[in-house]
Amino acid sequence: MSDRLEQQLNLLMELDRLKSVLRRTRIRSAESRFENSAEHSWHVAMMALLFQEHANEPVDITKVIKMLLLHDIVEIDAGDTFVYDVQASQLQEQKELEAAERLFGMLPEDQGEELFTIWREFEQAESSEAKFAKALDRLIPMLLNYHNQGQSWIENKVTETQAIQVNQKIEKGSQVLWDKAKSLIEEAVENGWLKN
Amino acid sequence: MSDRLEQQLNLLMELDRLKSVLRRTRIRSAESRFENSAEHSWHVAMMALLFQEHANEPVDITKVIKMLLLHDIVEIDAGDTFVYDVQASQLQEQKELEAAERLFGMLPEDQGEELFTIWREFEQAESSEAKFAKALDRLIPMLLNYHNQGQSWIENKVTETQAIQVNQKIEKGSQVLWDKAKSLIEEAVENGWLKN
Repeated sequence: MSDRLEQQLNLLMELDRLKSVLRRTRIRSAESRFENSAEHSWHVAMMALLFQEHANEPVDITKVIKMLLLHDIVEIDAGDTFVYDVQASQLQEQKELEAAERLFGMLPEDQGEELFTIWREFEQAESSEAKFAKALDRLIPMLLNYHNQGQSWIENKVTETQAIQVNQKIEKGSQVLWDKAKSLIEEAVENGWLKN
Repeated sequence: MSDRLEQQLNLLMELDRLKSVLRRTRIRSAESRFENSAEHSWHVAMMALLFQEHANEPVDITKVIKMLLLHDIVEIDAGDTFVYDVQASQLQEQKELEAAERLFGMLPEDQGEELFTIWREFEQAESSEAKFAKALDRLIPMLLNYHNQGQSWIENKVTETQAIQVNQKIEKGSQVLWDKAKSLIEEAVENGWLKN
């Protein structure tokens, strides 16, 4: 077996650990357990496939999907940070960079660099693809929350102001989806799921 | 909100149910629970990204990834069938077709037809992309099993002959990965994880 294949297989098996990283959002089915970051990554990559037409600018959908498949793997080392926990989010950045270096460093050098570049482009949130991918990554937990009667907002005492501040970047990737997000927030406030 | 967006959002929330469809393979982490089809779909789409260079023929990687993101959504209605249960696999076909019609039918017609076509191309296993995607979908549970000391093979009393029969189609998508699969099977037989 070639060294390249061996390196790729080692990373593939390491990635299995993302299935044990839990988020604050619950799935919608009867069991209502916390969602893990691997199934979230599938769901948001599917969302890119379904929602491409709503991006503000034309996007290279392959890159968007790659970003979303990769975006959370750093949580294998760094854990998930709740998006409303601003302080933790700042400390998280360095941990995630180290995780990216370790994980992509397991691959053949050319391939590791290529994927690290895509991961960093997502983090920097400047390209059309990254802005759209970030918009989807913000909106999907809002949708799950909304359909779970505001579960994670209530459990974590999130306010309307926080919901707007954290999620308004959706607008940079998709005006259409930000309009939808605003209507969800309004309804959540009316229902008492978000405090005002 | 446009009708299109509403239809797309309805399907997106319906897809959440794939997170509750359990497979026979267990994840590798400490909890060692059964894997669900959503996190499997993420893992195998990541595998396409990592293993593209091992396809027998050049492949359109975007199509391969789309196939793998979509391939199991029919299990929302039809459930997962264990790959070694040949009788159930035959009955499954009709159930999965009906599920595909229902799920893709939730989308705007043009989009639903486009994605249904990709799903069916995967099922037919004839194009380069479908053969490669199928190869990955067969190999990844073997890898997890192998790293779990043959767990699912032992629990389901799978034989060497079955393992070869069911998995030899890997060769059609990737000779390199079939060579790897054969070495896993040999070792599993030596370790008593597969009966001969």
